[in-house]
Amino acid sequence: MSDFFIETTKADKVLPTNSRPKFFAFGIPSYTNLGDQAVSLAQRKYIENEFPEYQYIEILEDDNDEGIEAVKKIITSQDIVSFVGGGNMGSLYTNHEAARRKVFSTFVNNLTISFPQSIHFEDTPSGLKEQKLSQEAYGKNRHLFLIARDAQSYHRMQTTFDNQVLFTPDMVLYFKASHYDFKRSGALFVLRHDGEKVVGDSLIDSMKKMLDNNRPLKRTDTVLDTVKRITPINREKLFKEELELFAHQEIVITDRWHAMVFSVLTGTPCLLFGNSYGKGKHAYFDWLEHINWIAYTDEEDLDRIDQQIQRLIKTKEHAYDIRPDFKQLHDLIKLHSKK
Amino acid sequence: MSDFFIETTKADKVLPTNSRPKFFAFGIPSYTNLGDQAVSLAQRKYIENEFPEYQYIEILEDDNDEGIEAVKKIITSQDIVSFVGGGNMGSLYTNHEAARRKVFSTFVNNLTISFPQSIHFEDTPSGLKEQKLSQEAYGKNRHLFLIARDAQSYHRMQTTFDNQVLFTPDMVLYFKASHYDFKRSGALFVLRHDGEKVVGDSLIDSMKKMLDNNRPLKRTDTVLDTVKRITPINREKLFKEELELFAHQEIVITDRWHAMVFSVLTGTPCLLFGNSYGKGKHAYFDWLEHINWIAYTDEEDLDRIDQQIQRLIKTKEHAYDIRPDFKQLHDLIKLHSKK
Repeated sequence: MSDFFIETTKADKVLPTNSRPKFFAFGIPSYTNLGDQAVSLAQRKYIENEFPEYQYIEILEDDNDEGIEAVKKIITSQDIVSFVGGGNMGSLYTNHEAARRKVFSTFVNNLTISFPQSIHFEDTPSGLKEQKLSQEAYGKNRHLFLIARDAQSYHRMQTTFDNQVLFTPDMVLYFKASHYDFKRSGALFVLRHDGEKVVGDSLIDSMKKMLDNNRPLKRTDTVLDTVKRITPINREKLFKEELELFAHQEIVITDRWHAMVFSVLTGTPCLLFGNSYGKGKHAYFDWLEHINWIAYTDEEDLDRIDQQIQRLIKTKEHAYDIRPDFKQLHDLIKLHSKK
Repeated sequence: MSDFFIETTKADKVLPTNSRPKFFAFGIPSYTNLGDQAVSLAQRKYIENEFPEYQYIEILEDDNDEGIEAVKKIITSQDIVSFVGGGNMGSLYTNHEAARRKVFSTFVNNLTISFPQSIHFEDTPSGLKEQKLSQEAYGKNRHLFLIARDAQSYHRMQTTFDNQVLFTPDMVLYFKASHYDFKRSGALFVLRHDGEKVVGDSLIDSMKKMLDNNRPLKRTDTVLDTVKRITPINREKLFKEELELFAHQEIVITDRWHAMVFSVLTGTPCLLFGNSYGKGKHAYFDWLEHINWIAYTDEEDLDRIDQQIQRLIKTKEHAYDIRPDFKQLHDLIKLHSKK
């Protein structure tokens, strides 16, 4: 790693005290969801490439409370505070939402960036209670900019919060695609086991039977069970291994948004199914519909699914360019750093 | 009308010369597309409601050249220049694109707003030539803000132009919904006759047969042939008449984005089909998917279409709120007016 990050609760003893402007990245995951790990890696690469004048400092979400106290002691007005992007703003993952609230409502005098997120507060008493807590916390920070990574979330953030809302893709789409020369073989099913899962097991079994003509079939998840913990130390290596796994496949069948993103980055044909609140669907239509080797579907008819898969397998890689879509984020940081 | 607009080529003789800040609205249509007319009406209502300190001055696109010369003589740095929103940025409607280029490349020292648009430059030699002309013209204006009304257009604008790009809904969605107490009866087919049409006539005929069980069927288009010309003088009356027509229907079947918008505003069940480049589809998924009485489909299977229509007819009206989604536009004008 080129820079410091906090991994222990001894955070306050090791934070740098030089005069370089700091970019504090809160909410960094240590759990084994490779999608979320890729987001935190992409954020770091983005700031280091685009704004090298900032010293990028990551604070693991595990150390959120201690990290906040440590940062409080050294922060100055030139510094930027941020909370990690992903798909967990709302009432489905209250531990992440609580950590986020605390960061936003603490550093109210600094430019605060909520990296690109999807949002979903459930329309239930407990969901609305969580929403109210977030409205109160976010509302304390007049320098907080929320970034939506899909238009549905953009609408929801604008109608839920009084904060400014920007619109960019998921940070992982900042990575450029690589060309791999592996011989492709087999179908990879990358499927959720969590509360967002909506694709039925019988449909999955039917698709497996359909694709099983001398083709190796594997089932996996972007949440790894082969390691106990992923941190900024080992995430890049694991991310690259995951991309290589994808680059060996003829086709990826998934209900994970980041499995589609990994397919984009590796030129791998991919069919994406929905989750409980449409985050992958919306992000696909917003940013990726023009990329030929991937598609989104709600279809349950096997013949129609088969037609889509056959079409995807035949497509050729082509150039695409998503980086200009990060301009609203870029302009925000640029404007601040000029002050 | 509460304010002046230019309708003759004698524009320079009648422009106001008071000291009030001006909001010049170029590109105002006189042709009989009620969707585009509703856009120009909504823009006026938006500025008059939200920024009453500005004197709103409309310049018909027919008078673009004379209007530009007249405005040049009186414009000051506090004034804002704009070009009308809609779905015609690109190479499909070169007359509108040429008028737009001229406005953007003339008033290069004023805040210039391109009201929410969809964009489509064809990937053909003539399409790319048009795109280059637009890149050159837009590129001359460092104070030009483009606004996309769907995420696909947002991506396309960011990758085509160096200008700042904002993201808001179509201006017609600024209108609040009205409740009508008409007894609903019949199906209204609102269908294109232009180059963007992709829904086949045989599918339309089949849908008509399907819906024709003692139900009055009508076919129309939001482009009127009952009047020769629509201007700021008569557009509001015709717009209200169109909304009343919609409010009498049990179901609207359409490939016109603004027919879906009129259905939203009147609580009328509506099924939207695609056009040649997905502008209605994307705007639907971006802003309207949570509204129960409307839906988008690419379906060609009559049974599935019938199921969707039956579901839509049964839905109840509910509250919705799109106005917060105009915040990026609001902040832009507010920031300028504070200077």
